[in-house]
Amino acid sequence: MNETRVTVWNEYRHEREDERYRSVYPDGIHGAIAEGLSAAGDLKVRTATLDEPENGLPEHVLMETDVLIWWGHKAHEEVSDETVNRVQARVLHGMGLLVLHSGHFSKIFKRLMGTSCNLIWRVADEVERIWVVAPSHPIAEGLDRYVELEREEMYGEFFDVPPPQEVVFLSWFPGGEVFRSGCCYTRGSGKIFYFRPGHESYPTFYNADVRKIMGNAVRWAAPVDGPPRVFGNQAPLSPL
Amino acid sequence: MNETRVTVWNEYRHEREDERYRSVYPDGIHGAIAEGLSAAGDLKVRTATLDEPENGLPEHVLMETDVLIWWGHKAHEEVSDETVNRVQARVLHGMGLLVLHSGHFSKIFKRLMGTSCNLIWRVADEVERIWVVAPSHPIAEGLDRYVELEREEMYGEFFDVPPPQEVVFLSWFPGGEVFRSGCCYTRGSGKIFYFRPGHESYPTFYNADVRKIMGNAVRWAAPVDGPPRVFGNQAPLSPL
Amino acid sequence: MNETRVTVWNEYRHEREDERYRSVYPDGIHGAIAEGLSAAGDLKVRTATLDEPENGLPEHVLMETDVLIWWGHKAHEEVSDETVNRVQARVLHGMGLLVLHSGHFSKIFKRLMGTSCNLIWRVADEVERIWVVAPSHPIAEGLDRYVELEREEMYGEFFDVPPPQEVVFLSWFPGGEVFRSGCCYTRGSGKIFYFRPGHESYPTFYNADVRKIMGNAVRWAAPVDGPPRVFGNQAPLSPL
Amino acid sequence: MNETRVTVWNEYRHEREDERYRSVYPDGIHGAIAEGLSAAGDLKVRTATLDEPENGLPEHVLMETDVLIWWGHKAHEEVSDETVNRVQARVLHGMGLLVLHSGHFSKIFKRLMGTSCNLIWRVADEVERIWVVAPSHPIAEGLDRYVELEREEMYGEFFDVPPPQEVVFLSWFPGGEVFRSGCCYTRGSGKIFYFRPGHESYPTFYNADVRKIMGNAVRWAAPVDGPPRVFGNQAPLSPL
Repeated sequence: MNETRVTVWNEYRHEREDERYRSVYPDGIHGAIAEGLSAAGDLKVRTATLDEPENGLPEHVLMETDVLIWWGHKAHEEVSDETVNRVQARVLHGMGLLVLHSGHFSKIFKRLMGTSCNLIWRVADEVERIWVVAPSHPIAEGLDRYVELEREEMYGEFFDVPPPQEVVFLSWFPGGEVFRSGCCYTRGSGKIFYFRPGHESYPTFYNADVRKIMGNAVRWAAPVDGPPRVFGNQAPLSPL
Repeated sequence: MNETRVTVWNEYRHEREDERYRSVYPDGIHGAIAEGLSAAGDLKVRTATLDEPENGLPEHVLMETDVLIWWGHKAHEEVSDETVNRVQARVLHGMGLLVLHSGHFSKIFKRLMGTSCNLIWRVADEVERIWVVAPSHPIAEGLDRYVELEREEMYGEFFDVPPPQEVVFLSWFPGGEVFRSGCCYTRGSGKIFYFRPGHESYPTFYNADVRKIMGNAVRWAAPVDGPPRVFGNQAPLSPL
Repeated sequence: MNETRVTVWNEYRHEREDERYRSVYPDGIHGAIAEGLSAAGDLKVRTATLDEPENGLPEHVLMETDVLIWWGHKAHEEVSDETVNRVQARVLHGMGLLVLHSGHFSKIFKRLMGTSCNLIWRVADEVERIWVVAPSHPIAEGLDRYVELEREEMYGEFFDVPPPQEVVFLSWFPGGEVFRSGCCYTRGSGKIFYFRPGHESYPTFYNADVRKIMGNAVRWAAPVDGPPRVFGNQAPLSPL
Repeated sequence: MNETRVTVWNEYRHEREDERYRSVYPDGIHGAIAEGLSAAGDLKVRTATLDEPENGLPEHVLMETDVLIWWGHKAHEEVSDETVNRVQARVLHGMGLLVLHSGHFSKIFKRLMGTSCNLIWRVADEVERIWVVAPSHPIAEGLDRYVELEREEMYGEFFDVPPPQEVVFLSWFPGGEVFRSGCCYTRGSGKIFYFRPGHESYPTFYNADVRKIMGNAVRWAAPVDGPPRVFGNQAPLSPL
């Protein structure tokens, strides 16, 4: 088994433009995520950001990426359609994709889901309690029956995504809302995991449980050396 | 319960351009489908074709459509992106969508699936045997344990679509292939059914079992008067 | 379409033995459910209770039942294995089954699920907010985006059932728990719906939204006239 | 990561009682499976058979088993209910279970599925072609787009199991049948994989692709160190 190669992609605008967010994530959200993933020692982690050439994701970077992590919020429209095309193609060929929090509205997530990916939300420093509802799932490895985050943004249902193939987590918020917070999908030969928490104003990506979940999700989403993609006109295998 | 309003959309090129197909479908594939659906008496059926203004699907037609049926093959690229946007929006708001045969490669199906929708195929006058694997599903109402079509085009796996939420039919072909032939999805408030058979050179849409399946699928896909689509910033329901 | 025949089965001990529950359900829980279902006029409703001969469900009653509704709590073990066998066989042959609230621990539900069906719970007069997460599902017909019950028993995750084929509802409770409250399954040719609310001390089965959901669920679970059940040694359909 | 401990359970009657089967599997079907699994070097494999005390599966053996493999055919009824209870409890607590071929009719598989697990079948030395339909699934690791077995027993639909949570393989048989041949389920904290091939008269368990699939399936089904099983009356987590 080769080392899994992870690219952490971040829009990286909030932290550069506003001291409130920079104080929480001085090395950027991508920096905090990369630090958390690197600790385990079995992942090879790089980062990429929106304002780099080709949105930080030229072909050669994607070809060397086993799992791509996506955090974006206010500049979704600045990601070029060419970038979205490249990422989608790589997912269909097997690259894993983790979409975080406000990435629900990214072009690439909407492209892969086929829906609006809309939801209800509120920023009010609410506690979030994330319940495990798939105890046999590798993404739940090492967790207790729920994870608690002291302060987070609320996201609530209806979350306009296709029904997840596996729901690993359900979130509870004190204002009265629930949310499907850990959603697994496959598209082509690739695996996708949407994970809800991670607002730019909260230190979520330093949380030990969140870091455990992120590592589990990367290992789960790593490509399988599966069957080749064969399409088009084919001769019969048995005599007609 | 009001009458379900069905629009049968057909690319309508093969039958106009080539006598071989016109002889099979003198009133167009849409004509044969509409005739089959109208027989039961509980559906209000209209047709639309690619070369009509706005691809035959202006806003007002879609607003008056409960279930849209889609047959296309060689002119997928001529359907405008505006049309695809309109249809997708209507599906997310509840309109049912039946995608037939070569419609697997239509822009609207690829948009809603998020994948390439590619597959393997062969035209060799093969028998197709369509097995029911979801006996409690309303789309299987009135069927025997399999449906047999004397001659059809072969489609085989891997079919690059998201794993269906429900697989109603599996097809067998003599050349050695299998196919997930009846695939149910939901997107937003809308239901989608992909049904495999229906090559332009075979009289599939006159077949009694196929017509039964089409009618069942329309009734299954008809919109539910469900909850409103509410998104965006929301006040708490319980006191914080 | 013939009238759907519903049998509402109730353990009927709480209401006979304790004035607190009788005051809420003077005609029994089955009486309140039957009253609610009868109002629409399209269902033919009868009731049955545990202490009747053959647990109220002899062969002929089951043969005349399209959808069986199950409420039980403290006498699950008094339902005979023969009764459970009969009900399971009927479900596999197409009879719908609605399991309510504490019926999660009934022999028949555990038999059909294959798991412990255990959960966490608390009786503390808590509000329950039931969110719709499958807006295109017929069981959500006519509902708003959530249903609120002023007082109910809490059930929380982990709910030890197989991952539902469709999750229609998720519940929120003020103590911090969430629950998959509307769970769809198929077994053989039959459909099963588990619906969470309905504690014996609360007037849940008089609630207008709950009654709407119950009616929707009965119509959804009504048998389809699907393929015959054919098993065993079979000759080839194509020449070997 | 500790070594995964596998117990291969075999009814072990055919091979002892009939020279035809002994000549194919001189060390028993369990012997051939254990040999195949041991080759990779990362699994710790033991075997157990029906006629050993407590059906070869006393409590201490199950407690030391991470993944149990089950092959049975003509003596399903001789497995005691106590054994079935013990195995079910272990699966709910996380033990993986691989059920092979005629094991579809075993008590433990029927217990975990809740259905008849019946199907159609024929012994006629037919080729079986097993198509991969979940290319991102770890059980498909290292495979081509289909696996071909020269001679096998036919199993055909309708296979009376709950709709699989993931279908990895679909089989094609020359007589005209199809079958869901690789079916994933979870029950409680445990994972279950049903794999179709493996008739006692064919050398299936020596096949290199089948051995690869068995190894993949064992690794996939190995327990996750997930959340504890907490049930019963619970205090609120947030103030009421």
